[in-house]
Amino acid sequence: MKIAFSVMCCWLLIAGSAHAVETVKGGEVLSVIHSRKSVRNFTGASVSMTDLDKVLRAGMAAPSAKNMQPWSFVVVTDRKLLDSLAAGLPSAKMLFKAGAAIIVCTDPKLAIGKSQDYAVIDASLAGENILLAVESLGLGAVWTAAFPDPARMTLVRGMLGIPQDIIPLNVIAVGVPTGEDKPKDKYKKERIHWQKW
Amino acid sequence: MKIAFSVMCCWLLIAGSAHAVETVKGGEVLSVIHSRKSVRNFTGASVSMTDLDKVLRAGMAAPSAKNMQPWSFVVVTDRKLLDSLAAGLPSAKMLFKAGAAIIVCTDPKLAIGKSQDYAVIDASLAGENILLAVESLGLGAVWTAAFPDPARMTLVRGMLGIPQDIIPLNVIAVGVPTGEDKPKDKYKKERIHWQKW
Repeated sequence: MKIAFSVMCCWLLIAGSAHAVETVKGGEVLSVIHSRKSVRNFTGASVSMTDLDKVLRAGMAAPSAKNMQPWSFVVVTDRKLLDSLAAGLPSAKMLFKAGAAIIVCTDPKLAIGKSQDYAVIDASLAGENILLAVESLGLGAVWTAAFPDPARMTLVRGMLGIPQDIIPLNVIAVGVPTGEDKPKDKYKKERIHWQKW
Repeated sequence: MKIAFSVMCCWLLIAGSAHAVETVKGGEVLSVIHSRKSVRNFTGASVSMTDLDKVLRAGMAAPSAKNMQPWSFVVVTDRKLLDSLAAGLPSAKMLFKAGAAIIVCTDPKLAIGKSQDYAVIDASLAGENILLAVESLGLGAVWTAAFPDPARMTLVRGMLGIPQDIIPLNVIAVGVPTGEDKPKDKYKKERIHWQKW
């Protein structure tokens, strides 16, 4: 009886492991890519330094043209500063309840050919990694644009002491989601052209 | 003896499962973000339509400013066309051995405020999702730039019949990696500013 139970127990665990192996190929990553949504409703809870560190490391793992890595990050967790950003930015009112803000910055001087276009693309890829890392950790985020809006960039630079020659690309609100925000299905077959346009 | 073996076997499997549960929070996603590398060495094997479909769906799951989704995708799997792109583009010689090319395009007319900047950022996020989806499927990819290089954009538009008002952002080579390309550790603590720059 004990042997039978042990054997059944093993079988169940082996079956479970086999299932885990089967679903490995792309599974969790594609699932997070599709479950990522712009989260604008947060509980007000804080975000741990451990999670912020993981998220920033994910950002810096992005590719960049000729590996120039022109990006920098300002991370705001101070409640008063988050509230000031929320008050000043019409598009970022959700910061009142977010636990953190990550401002992805980019320096055209560091990008290939000192190009603003490459600087913005490189930092955008870091930004997407951040959004996906946040989602993977069970947190929520929304990218609110700073660039290319001159007024928003001026406000963000002023509040956070960002130099004039650095572009604040966005203000990403990060926090614990209330669960109200849901992902959208945005698949459009007609946007895919096979072989030629 | 049999019981002891069964118990040990169960213990090992339980320990394995517990480890799997522990690593679920962000684990696979962060792992793929960090293992993603620019793959320039391909075996020459083809990429399945199933995998290309998953990758394109991941691209379209990206966020975009005001959800405008200004992106389109040209997918090349035709060997002659891949070889022509490889011959014409100095930065895309790896296409000779790639199984597919995905050209992420963007239409400023569809972006918020008909802004080229928003169009490029939105499509860049779709591009990063594509790179991560490729990595998650055990394939490899590298983003070779078309935008903002006028000569490369002209060549890509000409070969693939892409209209003049559409920006071909890149040519992403996708294929089966030989294993030669390795990820880089790009973490730089000094690029993180806490609270203020």
